[in-house]
Amino acid sequence: MGAVITGVETVDLRFPTSRELDGSDAMNEAPDYSAAYVVLRTEGDTPDGHGFTFTIGRGNELAVQAAELVGARAVGMDVDEVVGDLGAFARHLDGDSQLRWLGPHKGAIHLGTAAVVNAAWDLAGKRAGKPVWKLLSDMAPAQIVDLVDWRYLRDALTPDAARAMLERAEPGRAEREQTLRDNGYPAYTTSAGWLGYDDVKLARLCREAVDAGWDSIKIKVGADVDDDVRRCRIVRDTIGPGRRLMIDANQTLGVDEAVAWWERLREFDVWWFEEPTSPDDVLGHAAIARRIAPTHVATGEHGHNAVMFKQFLTSGGMGICQLDACRLGGVNEAVAVLLLAAARGVPVCPHAGGVGLCELVQHLSMFDYVAVSGSAEDRMVEYVDHLHEHFVDPVRMNGSFYLPPTAPGYSSEIRPETLRDFAWPHGSSWA
Amino acid sequence: MGAVITGVETVDLRFPTSRELDGSDAMNEAPDYSAAYVVLRTEGDTPDGHGFTFTIGRGNELAVQAAELVGARAVGMDVDEVVGDLGAFARHLDGDSQLRWLGPHKGAIHLGTAAVVNAAWDLAGKRAGKPVWKLLSDMAPAQIVDLVDWRYLRDALTPDAARAMLERAEPGRAEREQTLRDNGYPAYTTSAGWLGYDDVKLARLCREAVDAGWDSIKIKVGADVDDDVRRCRIVRDTIGPGRRLMIDANQTLGVDEAVAWWERLREFDVWWFEEPTSPDDVLGHAAIARRIAPTHVATGEHGHNAVMFKQFLTSGGMGICQLDACRLGGVNEAVAVLLLAAARGVPVCPHAGGVGLCELVQHLSMFDYVAVSGSAEDRMVEYVDHLHEHFVDPVRMNGSFYLPPTAPGYSSEIRPETLRDFAWPHGSSWA
Repeated sequence: MGAVITGVETVDLRFPTSRELDGSDAMNEAPDYSAAYVVLRTEGDTPDGHGFTFTIGRGNELAVQAAELVGARAVGMDVDEVVGDLGAFARHLDGDSQLRWLGPHKGAIHLGTAAVVNAAWDLAGKRAGKPVWKLLSDMAPAQIVDLVDWRYLRDALTPDAARAMLERAEPGRAEREQTLRDNGYPAYTTSAGWLGYDDVKLARLCREAVDAGWDSIKIKVGADVDDDVRRCRIVRDTIGPGRRLMIDANQTLGVDEAVAWWERLREFDVWWFEEPTSPDDVLGHAAIARRIAPTHVATGEHGHNAVMFKQFLTSGGMGICQLDACRLGGVNEAVAVLLLAAARGVPVCPHAGGVGLCELVQHLSMFDYVAVSGSAEDRMVEYVDHLHEHFVDPVRMNGSFYLPPTAPGYSSEIRPETLRDFAWPHGSSWA
Repeated sequence: MGAVITGVETVDLRFPTSRELDGSDAMNEAPDYSAAYVVLRTEGDTPDGHGFTFTIGRGNELAVQAAELVGARAVGMDVDEVVGDLGAFARHLDGDSQLRWLGPHKGAIHLGTAAVVNAAWDLAGKRAGKPVWKLLSDMAPAQIVDLVDWRYLRDALTPDAARAMLERAEPGRAEREQTLRDNGYPAYTTSAGWLGYDDVKLARLCREAVDAGWDSIKIKVGADVDDDVRRCRIVRDTIGPGRRLMIDANQTLGVDEAVAWWERLREFDVWWFEEPTSPDDVLGHAAIARRIAPTHVATGEHGHNAVMFKQFLTSGGMGICQLDACRLGGVNEAVAVLLLAAARGVPVCPHAGGVGLCELVQHLSMFDYVAVSGSAEDRMVEYVDHLHEHFVDPVRMNGSFYLPPTAPGYSSEIRPETLRDFAWPHGSSWA
């Protein structure tokens, strides 16, 4: 018997981002970016595992409490067994039928699961001496397949078909890993286009983004269509015709309304229309996608589990797959979605920003590139330049490219002074 | 200015039902039926509003905390304004964008919303001196339409079309209300077929059910198909060919697996197959429905919002609509689902059992019969004979029919001694 997981510690971490309207959009007018932070404590020299899920303020305590309830199932487990079979571990966390009732696989309880699973992957990476993207990319196809809970997915993709797909990608892994180390992974920026920014700030930030090498820029829309016409014109005029403009309505519109909105904005050559309507509306997204082609429908940041992604991907409702590392149940369920998306040829462009989402999803996209889809075409990770300073191993950018993390773990560890100062409600930033 | 809502009180109420395996099924092997109970306190002579949501034990504290967070938005509001526009009230509760992030409209935060909205309807019924089914049934079509949040629903049903449908049902309201008072509303029983019961108990309970007048009986399946063949044979042999047998797999199966399961059980003339797979899998249910016709696919107890029901109803994935009064965001969202189902001609047979779900959904089905679908054909409310003794105004059965409640309110008020003895973890039943 090796070292065991001795306890689960949590921190209710909140950043007062609403004070500057960073992160403001048509649905979320004043978020306080927050994390339900989890530390899996272990014995002796064994590293601890750090993970979290992301919320936008009030109610973060529910995610914290959910992480404690789910995390209690990990206490006493042998670390070698956990990191040796992370698929079984994730299924074990999911296996309390009383807690399952609160979802299943959605809402606060699933956010809590995500935090604990992510912490276990951080622990696994540190124990292996590898960043998580590399730990995943070094796994055999059968090992990767075993990470996934296939119960509800086999009608879209069988484990055998997934393994065959991964085997086809295996010969190119080393070359793509080298490309990644040489060039990094492509990104796009959302930092210019928050809805709370005025036109002058929008134009200035777009100009600065172009000057800094960004060629894909996303802005928030969905509150007032006349405002959005004016703002899209400012962006297109500033960035010129050769760069990508994406728009994001953050779920504010109905199905027909979304198409009408797009009609007003199509002259600005919109590459994707993100979250046009309810994140649960698979069939609504599919209807929108048919009507706004060739603009892609992008969604997934509120896609709560792999069953939803299965439907979005098979129905044509998701032209761009924006999985979230913290809303899905952690790395394992994200791997399931990467497999489903690759099987359908849908590019994955993960949701990032928030607290540490950039730090996490870079690992997932790099693994996708090296070992799953084997492609970076039309694929980008969102980039937002907030809150990275709080991380022990923050993202490193090379212009508009993410450089691959080199430190062991999931880049999910937050600095101790941040955990102290931004703990809610008694940290110095809140007191 | 009239009386205001002065505070929100909550109780974490849990019943140790796992001790007897009442409520056991293939997914939920040992539930402790629980309620996150809410009291909206008011000033002076104004009645208080009592409501709750339902969970099965561990994690109920998340629903309680969610109800407190959502309920805080009601404190200080004028009671007349609340009960005068319950649609606006429900949308107001939903309007905190930070809390919305935890869903949206799903999981713990939505369970909390349900508890508060249900409490407000209890208050509205008591203030009007009417049971909620009657309060709803006396509303004008336009008032009913205004109860609903239409943002994401208009592509399936417009408010105008809903109003026209309600107007067509208006002339028959009085006659159907009289029928209801004379005969009650039809029910079916699940009390015979919990998975934890042995064959002898199953046969005895089926026999007793037939003797008591039940002609529709549901049993749990989904753990072991050979066991299920044997148990279905016992039930069919006991109840004879003229009665309905329904089976419920409680989400345990994949899509193809569910069809294969049904192939083994079809000889027993199964009327519906309930929750064959993930409750989120609209397209999976639609595929199953196509392959097991004329057996109906029944689902909805884990349908978390009206957007999901919209898709289930338009895709053919839901032949029987089993809405839940506590998983949807309370009465208002249940009304939305009743309208969507009636527009598609899909019978609503609400999920009940648990803690007080029978007490609540009887109101919804009776309203559906009087003023929405105008039909009781193929419609039944689930009946389970547990825990009614804890309610101030428990359901009253006339054989296999629910008698319409006569006391003002939503039949949602629990007796004070129950609130004391079953409060978790310090009530006498837990201490």
